[in-house]
Amino acid sequence: MMLTDGLFGDEDLERLMTAPCQINAICLVESALARCQGRLGIIPAKAAAEIVERIEKRQIDPADLLGPTMRAGIAAQAVAAALKKQCGENADWVHFGATSQDIEDTALVICLVEALRIIEERLVKLEKRLAAKAERFADLAIPARTRFQLAAPTTLGAKIAVWRAPLRRHLKRLAELRVRLFTVSFHGAAGTGAALGPDMARVRQALAEELNLGADDVPWHSARDNIAELAGWLAMLCGSLGKIGADLILLGQSEIAEVSAGTGGASSTMPQKSNPIAAETLVTIARLNAGAVGTIHQAMVHAQERDGSALAIEWRVLPGMVVQSGAALHLAIDLVESLSADPKAIQGTFDADRGAMLAEAAGFHLLRFMPRHKALELVRQALAEMATNGGETLPEALSRIVPGHDWAEILAIENNKGDAAGQARS
Amino acid sequence: MMLTDGLFGDEDLERLMTAPCQINAICLVESALARCQGRLGIIPAKAAAEIVERIEKRQIDPADLLGPTMRAGIAAQAVAAALKKQCGENADWVHFGATSQDIEDTALVICLVEALRIIEERLVKLEKRLAAKAERFADLAIPARTRFQLAAPTTLGAKIAVWRAPLRRHLKRLAELRVRLFTVSFHGAAGTGAALGPDMARVRQALAEELNLGADDVPWHSARDNIAELAGWLAMLCGSLGKIGADLILLGQSEIAEVSAGTGGASSTMPQKSNPIAAETLVTIARLNAGAVGTIHQAMVHAQERDGSALAIEWRVLPGMVVQSGAALHLAIDLVESLSADPKAIQGTFDADRGAMLAEAAGFHLLRFMPRHKALELVRQALAEMATNGGETLPEALSRIVPGHDWAEILAIENNKGDAAGQARS
Amino acid sequence: MMLTDGLFGDEDLERLMTAPCQINAICLVESALARCQGRLGIIPAKAAAEIVERIEKRQIDPADLLGPTMRAGIAAQAVAAALKKQCGENADWVHFGATSQDIEDTALVICLVEALRIIEERLVKLEKRLAAKAERFADLAIPARTRFQLAAPTTLGAKIAVWRAPLRRHLKRLAELRVRLFTVSFHGAAGTGAALGPDMARVRQALAEELNLGADDVPWHSARDNIAELAGWLAMLCGSLGKIGADLILLGQSEIAEVSAGTGGASSTMPQKSNPIAAETLVTIARLNAGAVGTIHQAMVHAQERDGSALAIEWRVLPGMVVQSGAALHLAIDLVESLSADPKAIQGTFDADRGAMLAEAAGFHLLRFMPRHKALELVRQALAEMATNGGETLPEALSRIVPGHDWAEILAIENNKGDAAGQARS
Amino acid sequence: MMLTDGLFGDEDLERLMTAPCQINAICLVESALARCQGRLGIIPAKAAAEIVERIEKRQIDPADLLGPTMRAGIAAQAVAAALKKQCGENADWVHFGATSQDIEDTALVICLVEALRIIEERLVKLEKRLAAKAERFADLAIPARTRFQLAAPTTLGAKIAVWRAPLRRHLKRLAELRVRLFTVSFHGAAGTGAALGPDMARVRQALAEELNLGADDVPWHSARDNIAELAGWLAMLCGSLGKIGADLILLGQSEIAEVSAGTGGASSTMPQKSNPIAAETLVTIARLNAGAVGTIHQAMVHAQERDGSALAIEWRVLPGMVVQSGAALHLAIDLVESLSADPKAIQGTFDADRGAMLAEAAGFHLLRFMPRHKALELVRQALAEMATNGGETLPEALSRIVPGHDWAEILAIENNKGDAAGQARS
Repeated sequence: MMLTDGLFGDEDLERLMTAPCQINAICLVESALARCQGRLGIIPAKAAAEIVERIEKRQIDPADLLGPTMRAGIAAQAVAAALKKQCGENADWVHFGATSQDIEDTALVICLVEALRIIEERLVKLEKRLAAKAERFADLAIPARTRFQLAAPTTLGAKIAVWRAPLRRHLKRLAELRVRLFTVSFHGAAGTGAALGPDMARVRQALAEELNLGADDVPWHSARDNIAELAGWLAMLCGSLGKIGADLILLGQSEIAEVSAGTGGASSTMPQKSNPIAAETLVTIARLNAGAVGTIHQAMVHAQERDGSALAIEWRVLPGMVVQSGAALHLAIDLVESLSADPKAIQGTFDADRGAMLAEAAGFHLLRFMPRHKALELVRQALAEMATNGGETLPEALSRIVPGHDWAEILAIENNKGDAAGQARS
Repeated sequence: MMLTDGLFGDEDLERLMTAPCQINAICLVESALARCQGRLGIIPAKAAAEIVERIEKRQIDPADLLGPTMRAGIAAQAVAAALKKQCGENADWVHFGATSQDIEDTALVICLVEALRIIEERLVKLEKRLAAKAERFADLAIPARTRFQLAAPTTLGAKIAVWRAPLRRHLKRLAELRVRLFTVSFHGAAGTGAALGPDMARVRQALAEELNLGADDVPWHSARDNIAELAGWLAMLCGSLGKIGADLILLGQSEIAEVSAGTGGASSTMPQKSNPIAAETLVTIARLNAGAVGTIHQAMVHAQERDGSALAIEWRVLPGMVVQSGAALHLAIDLVESLSADPKAIQGTFDADRGAMLAEAAGFHLLRFMPRHKALELVRQALAEMATNGGETLPEALSRIVPGHDWAEILAIENNKGDAAGQARS
Repeated sequence: MMLTDGLFGDEDLERLMTAPCQINAICLVESALARCQGRLGIIPAKAAAEIVERIEKRQIDPADLLGPTMRAGIAAQAVAAALKKQCGENADWVHFGATSQDIEDTALVICLVEALRIIEERLVKLEKRLAAKAERFADLAIPARTRFQLAAPTTLGAKIAVWRAPLRRHLKRLAELRVRLFTVSFHGAAGTGAALGPDMARVRQALAEELNLGADDVPWHSARDNIAELAGWLAMLCGSLGKIGADLILLGQSEIAEVSAGTGGASSTMPQKSNPIAAETLVTIARLNAGAVGTIHQAMVHAQERDGSALAIEWRVLPGMVVQSGAALHLAIDLVESLSADPKAIQGTFDADRGAMLAEAAGFHLLRFMPRHKALELVRQALAEMATNGGETLPEALSRIVPGHDWAEILAIENNKGDAAGQARS
Repeated sequence: MMLTDGLFGDEDLERLMTAPCQINAICLVESALARCQGRLGIIPAKAAAEIVERIEKRQIDPADLLGPTMRAGIAAQAVAAALKKQCGENADWVHFGATSQDIEDTALVICLVEALRIIEERLVKLEKRLAAKAERFADLAIPARTRFQLAAPTTLGAKIAVWRAPLRRHLKRLAELRVRLFTVSFHGAAGTGAALGPDMARVRQALAEELNLGADDVPWHSARDNIAELAGWLAMLCGSLGKIGADLILLGQSEIAEVSAGTGGASSTMPQKSNPIAAETLVTIARLNAGAVGTIHQAMVHAQERDGSALAIEWRVLPGMVVQSGAALHLAIDLVESLSADPKAIQGTFDADRGAMLAEAAGFHLLRFMPRHKALELVRQALAEMATNGGETLPEALSRIVPGHDWAEILAIENNKGDAAGQARS
């Protein structure tokens, strides 16, 4: 770990995505498997009970499993071997009828259930804070900027509503993908469950119930769409947070400084500086997960009944995506919590713009009285003249060029916010 | 276009993802907009009718719009300008209250509605053909191969069932994402709809109904999750097809040749060859779309109310993903249609293996009579001895080592297919 | 092609990366091959002469080759077949001893020679323009911004020098990679040149000389590092241009507007706007090629002696990268050509900052008289007081707090540009 | 860390890419900086000496720096602050005139110098082993396979020569990129070196000499091409190793088993299996680094004078690429060391092919006596007839169809290896 890795880290989720948790999850599956098989009479009930107990009391040092995992090319096999050692004469009934990938995948799902619970919790929290902030700033006029140019007025609440809307869709997507992803794997070496014959399906069903997961007849050993879907979701989530980060960076530039969020990082040599570390990190994580999702998709080209080269791509990439997503949510929650606006700075922007961003509004007002092209021509003339008449505003220029309208009122920022407040409160 | 681009092309979808269709879709939106606004009394009814008619009879040469599009940085603006020219005195009422991105995005959605209709149709067709093939080969034993080694018997039908299962999930996912993606955009310059004031929401609703799309209060100008979700879906779809391609390549290797599909490509210098072009192309497209989805996700970091640098990533990448997905489905349908098995070659593989892939089965049989580790020890001994006793099979070795069992029967391939047939017919 | 594809297009390079040019290059190779083999007595001299003539006068419609290319899975085979048809009784001596990939790869290299000539020419041109602009603005003070905050003064020339420096490295890299990339392929079906026996190496050498390329004994049919290196170079080049684009976007924001470049794109509804289309497109292309280079690298996992699924990734991705690189250079040249500064706007930024960005300078000045931490403490005090004393500048605050220094002079922007001018002129 | 991360890990390189080494490198740079500045009279000589000594004897716990690094958004700043604390009254002269990124980048380069030394050492070792193996198997005939079909004979040595050739190019590339990458950064806050004025260049030069690195006048704070070039090199290297892995997987399939390398991984349930874990991991790492290089290129769009969101992408991605490259080299060295061939299996493939892969050779022989098309026609006839005449070989079929040639001799594998042996020994 580099010192900077803390930027992308998240204790809660790292706990879930490291060897001890992986071992726990594998043990949980092996234990549940023994319990189910004991109950169904597939392995001796006594052996099952003892296995469950021994697994409970296991002594496994993750460090001891790194070598065996490398040799086996899959973690579950190394853990199963360690468990067998601890189960003495019952060793034969451990991992019974399973293939390592059954256990590996199911254990992964178990870790993901908890990881996604945490992530969803944070996402809900973030969504609520955004709703509250949108409400709070529903009416605060601020310039919209399109293609990096001042465009027209909106409100800060409406900006925040745009950050929030995709999060609600992400919650919906999460509910949808969960149904598919939270599925047990128990199909045996070739995916046919031959080892246990007709009992295979019964055990799978029992195991699924025991672990509170779904079950499919057809193995997903080599059909990795659910993993890719999850990776896509994590990347989408972080993409939406990255957009928040990008907006905060831009709104917080020294020259704009209309919105601030988070505590700025200090410079080692420039005392006046306050760097938007957290917002930058949101952008970084968005780009990291965007890159990672492409790599995970490469692993869908999964050969035959099990392809170690494809599986290992998932093992290496997915945990980082999960942790980074958690970190991004943490950062976003803090940023949004502390988000505040500087009305003076905003007013400064409006003042400096001298009403140019109301040009569209002026045009729409005028076309009640004349054809649009004529209206636009007059507006363009006003824009041109105000540019040369140092300091003149668009309302002033228009009052000169098209007298008889209350241009100050018509082009008042407050009268030109459209449905921004409504969006903020939606 | 390079000569080889035909491999990734698809006439039906290319038609939808090229300038003429894009122009048509933009015109469709502008026309619907005028109609709605006329009906709602927002623009003069007569002007609306004439605009609709003029758009109907428009004369637009796509070539004339390339320059204007480059200058505007967005296609809808160039098309709107061209339409205004054709609408004479009614020009003022064209594109009324819209921002170019409203039209661009809605037109994109319209093209995607049709593209996804075609893609879904093909996906359903492919899924059905796979179901039929799985049924047909439900019982045909064939080796499962894990990590590129012979593993244990399965059936060709079960293999096909594994190809098919994710496609059914993809259909479900498509239904879910459609609800989000098929949404009109009509929010105006700053996303607040200020140009039309309270009428904005009415027009948006009417436009959505007219175009048979959904509508959201909050603009998706800069929240691009629906696009990323679509890209993810296309990549997942092609990933699943790439897995079929990879399996067909491996099953079709000269030395294996158990399954053949498609017409092989000839070599320019080796007369005996038959190259698996179509299967290779499925793998290629899977990897192309896997790369592309990562790039699309980069575009989710979309600055402020409109970010041309992010939007243009979507414009450049998404059409290719759509077309490639269509091409992959076409190829997959043809491959699956022509898929046939060579029972003699399969039998050859089983023969050459001499029963080694039944080692797990032998172990499971023996543990009815002895502890598992003892059973495995005997099986390992049998495997070792058959390796040195040239030509001996595992049943033969076991009959020598553990007499008194009908090993030929116990380890008969046909008796060790587990639930493969059931999966094939599921 | 979508209307927006013009943003990424480049006529000169598209010409090189489309079917007609590909066909020409393939014909050039086949013709050179016949000529060499005729000269070396490997095919009848008369046949060679006639083949060369027929290829010269060939009638090939690219459209006719799309189908055969799809069936063959490689373009050179389709072209060779077409050429054979046109060569009548000499058909037997066309493509003699070659495998399609030999011709395909060599033809690709020939197209790349010309493409890289054009790209280098533009790169040199851009580098020179940057040098001129750096020279021109060597002394023009402008704020440096780090982490999106005002940092300290630099000069516009120094900014431009940072844009230019990597381009010079890219030119060096191009010279280095060329030696590797510009290599003929002529190794036959299995890469062993068995078809022509000992003549193979002679023909390869002759062909290389004829085409002004290098030659290696070991085939590069399946070792694709040179292609990946080229892709990396194109992505690096566009990354450097993307940085220019990003800087221009940020410097050109409405609220900053210190530097402008290019003609802004108009908005369809906001008359006051001038969008930085070209600068945005530089960013877009940087991100597109960044995504593409990752996909090309996936194709380095190239199975055995020829892997169609890997090759086709290159065919599909590389041409777009080349064209986009050309487009980016074009855009960058135009942007840099028209780059101008607005000294008033720059002064405005300095004024609004009120000297805060000279805080580091103040600290360094003071430590001639006191320990650094003491100096920094005083500077921090001054920064804090000026923040509350509306309108006070850092020199004013310091004059109050640390009298006896000519703070106005010490903190004058012009006296705090370090080596910026030197860098600009380097 | 997950249990499976061991597959991608490498102790030697992980040591270089973790916090302690990063801290050491940062301390090394700060120490060298103090020494140079003391020598040049820029800071007091006594202070310099004491700083150097204190840094030597420093007590820094990496764990204490994680929080400060997160807050600063850059590691060097946290380390510098810690060092200052340890330097007491000399704290003022630590990090003098530097900006954190100067130190961070230079420290990174120092770690990379050592990392690339290790990587090059292994690469040279691998290259030599490949040369030895190529020599050893120079004459051993083995089928070439193109597009996953038997093509024509080559030798195992020639296959290995194709693996080796790109490694030699990588060594050349490494030498070229080193010149650019191994460069000190010392340019100060805004890149202009204003803090030290004209002394900046002298210090930079001295620091470069002290650290045995190069120095450039123009800062590379925001021009990240050298990092992208390195990432590209690491991805190319691993791509070449991934090709070796893919070939070993395919050559080691149960049905082919012509070449074996490494110790196979055992299955948890299938006693007969020997999984190609190491070869699979080479493919995995190739794909991981291919994905990662695309993400690093995204970081070239680096805004203004310092962009934390872009920098952090490098920080997060590059260390993993370095470590994975080291792991891949380790795996490849072991695989190549243990690589052995099974001549009986190879002969089995040739026998099963019955000479079909000599079809090209037959054609080339015949065209000494007849036109090529006539020759190919006869060969095709022979291929067709042997397919139906169970067990007939191509030489036998040709002897029937074109008598009077010693087909057994003409089509003997040993007479049709072209220049394979020469390539192997090149």
